[in-house]
Amino acid sequence: MTDTIQNAIDYMAETRDKMMEDYKALLRFPSISADPAHAADVRACADWIVSQLQALGFDNCEAIATAGHPVVYGEWLKAGADKPTVLVYAHYDVQPVDPLPLWNSEPFEGLIRDGKLFARGASDNKAGVWGNLKTFETLLRANGELPVNIKIMFEGEEESGSPSIEAFVEANKDRLAADVLLNCDGDFSPDSPKLFYGGRGMVTAQVRVSGPKADIHSGLYGGLVQNPLHVAGKIIGAFHDHQGRIQLPGYYDDVTEATEAEKARIEAGFQEDALLEGAGVDQFWGESVAPASERATVYPTLDIVGLWGGYQGPGIKTIIPAEAGFKITMRLAPDQDPRTVSRTLKEYVEGFATDTVQIECAIGENAWYFQLETEGPWLEAVQSAIETTVGKRAQLVRTGGSIPILGVFNRLIGLPITAFGYGHGEGIHSPNEYLDIDTFFTSLEAALRLYHNLGEVEV
Amino acid sequence: MTDTIQNAIDYMAETRDKMMEDYKALLRFPSISADPAHAADVRACADWIVSQLQALGFDNCEAIATAGHPVVYGEWLKAGADKPTVLVYAHYDVQPVDPLPLWNSEPFEGLIRDGKLFARGASDNKAGVWGNLKTFETLLRANGELPVNIKIMFEGEEESGSPSIEAFVEANKDRLAADVLLNCDGDFSPDSPKLFYGGRGMVTAQVRVSGPKADIHSGLYGGLVQNPLHVAGKIIGAFHDHQGRIQLPGYYDDVTEATEAEKARIEAGFQEDALLEGAGVDQFWGESVAPASERATVYPTLDIVGLWGGYQGPGIKTIIPAEAGFKITMRLAPDQDPRTVSRTLKEYVEGFATDTVQIECAIGENAWYFQLETEGPWLEAVQSAIETTVGKRAQLVRTGGSIPILGVFNRLIGLPITAFGYGHGEGIHSPNEYLDIDTFFTSLEAALRLYHNLGEVEV
Repeated sequence: MTDTIQNAIDYMAETRDKMMEDYKALLRFPSISADPAHAADVRACADWIVSQLQALGFDNCEAIATAGHPVVYGEWLKAGADKPTVLVYAHYDVQPVDPLPLWNSEPFEGLIRDGKLFARGASDNKAGVWGNLKTFETLLRANGELPVNIKIMFEGEEESGSPSIEAFVEANKDRLAADVLLNCDGDFSPDSPKLFYGGRGMVTAQVRVSGPKADIHSGLYGGLVQNPLHVAGKIIGAFHDHQGRIQLPGYYDDVTEATEAEKARIEAGFQEDALLEGAGVDQFWGESVAPASERATVYPTLDIVGLWGGYQGPGIKTIIPAEAGFKITMRLAPDQDPRTVSRTLKEYVEGFATDTVQIECAIGENAWYFQLETEGPWLEAVQSAIETTVGKRAQLVRTGGSIPILGVFNRLIGLPITAFGYGHGEGIHSPNEYLDIDTFFTSLEAALRLYHNLGEVEV
Repeated sequence: MTDTIQNAIDYMAETRDKMMEDYKALLRFPSISADPAHAADVRACADWIVSQLQALGFDNCEAIATAGHPVVYGEWLKAGADKPTVLVYAHYDVQPVDPLPLWNSEPFEGLIRDGKLFARGASDNKAGVWGNLKTFETLLRANGELPVNIKIMFEGEEESGSPSIEAFVEANKDRLAADVLLNCDGDFSPDSPKLFYGGRGMVTAQVRVSGPKADIHSGLYGGLVQNPLHVAGKIIGAFHDHQGRIQLPGYYDDVTEATEAEKARIEAGFQEDALLEGAGVDQFWGESVAPASERATVYPTLDIVGLWGGYQGPGIKTIIPAEAGFKITMRLAPDQDPRTVSRTLKEYVEGFATDTVQIECAIGENAWYFQLETEGPWLEAVQSAIETTVGKRAQLVRTGGSIPILGVFNRLIGLPITAFGYGHGEGIHSPNEYLDIDTFFTSLEAALRLYHNLGEVEV
């Protein structure tokens, strides 16, 4: 077995430069999923990846239509029924590029300089697509086969909130059947490897509070006409008590205390000093709810992320503004149903309406929490591959963030999930995104070992 | 006496066209007080008005320097010690002109079309300056004298909040000594003449609520770091109870109930249907505080006039924003000291600061309420002039708005104040401001009678 890996490592070393040059073909597609003007580019990118899978000898390759952008599917099931089937997830769509003037090179050219490959998506997450394609190519060329059965699922709308993915997964349960899901939307850090094993659900909403038909004079109407900005303040001010506890009715009903093992994991992965420094604050806040490490990971939150109304320019304008608005993101604890939370939020907020001020709360995204393996052979396959490659195991980290697609898989498919990220870069979602090439090849080496290890898991 | 007025009316009719053509010379000064780039234009406009007063034979004419723009002063005191001295107020500065593309003619040219003279300031309030100059010219040319002693005080920074006027009045009390102040910053409506006899004081403020050093991720930091937008909501939500009563400590201590006579005047001038329609609401709000007519005029208010924080664009951004801000205007009841109110407001708002969120409340403008004559010979001089000219007396109206200069005179000088407006126009503070020429000459005729009547008041 070590021979087959060494063969693969040798093949990779020989073709390294070509692999990076060829990567530019994938990076050239401006597959910006959030911008309808790029829909054809997203589609073209999907078709190109399909052709790559076909060239590798994958079967049933297809850009499967969804209500939004297509999902790239392909399978290689020749490892045998006694080998695990791994469903591999990554996404081929990318973030928008603005502000374009801040880029030092063309975002969709792929410029290599100082060991870095600069392009939008070079790291997030075309590296996940390309890393897998090159890992499979390497294993197939070096050994003529893959150590596991593979099903590919590369999404095309992760960067725009995955609006079609739940319906897609629901409609394709049989096709997606597998023994484990491998999430490849992530990062590989040789110095301090980390694996996110869980995160929160999410609900987003936008609220509009409207009163007079237009901005009216605060001298003539002050005291006479209810000011929508005051009502917005009342709503926002009432969401939390002074200790930070959320006041939505029944909001903590489905929040269960973490197990002792989970608390220990959370505490071990909690980087208090780095977080304080990152926020630029002297201390955290909300101590009455739970310890800081748990508040940041497994307790639900409600944050106003944007707020507006009336005159925002210099000086003063003597008006009662016609309307106010604000945006909310809520992070949900494990087991909090985002649909229930959405309903509660909408009812609560709209309950502040009066005879003269109307309130509309529009729910945006809805996502379940996610939970990956924290022990067992699937995680061990990843840990062992990382350890053999870089000399240390990954720290398990619970994030307070949300990954909607994983929540969908947890809930609809119930597969075990583990994760592996290809390469490391910076500028994700920002100008001058890049992929560090050395790190990318280190991760490819780990990936060869990972698929080998997965092939050893008994199913 | 009727002869002297008829002489004047005849003189005015003969010179009418020239008066309008000559007015353009005044309108050509872009005397925008809010824009430092126009400081020299404001100064040039003041000097030009001084030269006009000198040409009329006024004495001690001067553009008196202040901390801001100059005040035009001039006096004609030859009516004799047994005649009243009238201090005449108007302002020669104007509002900015943007948005310029919406103007159909050059704002500082003075285009006459369809009986209207279009220019910035044509109505507000160079009509008050020009109307007085032409009234005095007419009376002097027709009769060789004025019926009263006159002191002119034309302000140059009314449109930017009169920041220097209080210090100017304080420093020039002797020079400004008179029997009555005539406020000529207003409107003349032949069909339904109105006189504002009182208004509210004002305090403005801007609040900044700041927390993390930059916008930080709501997934990583949600529940851990206090959100400045929540604190802004808490402050705004706490300003009023659910019936609209302001919760600032001691805020109603200096609010005294209006007299029965005052209540009757307020009620008579209160136009409920027009106000409901103007606001586009079905009903008013805040009934528990006082009747609507009084809430709109003699009760204090607190309005958030602008509000901002975080992400205001389309979609969502998952952040805890670094800061929030909002602007406040308060309208003050008679006898509420704006300095006391400012202090209370600042202490109250900044009291919401926590260990991790800073709050700064910067006070802007500060103005006392104002009160004009509601009876007596000075008001009767105005009413009689209007009635003789247009066949009806002006309705006395209490406004909920603020006129800082009048509050200064009430408090520092204690003069009786009455008001008279020259002409009528639209587009005040907006594009295509104009003065209706017929109405302007009707008001000039009334002004001839007004100064005649004032000369009859015993002092």
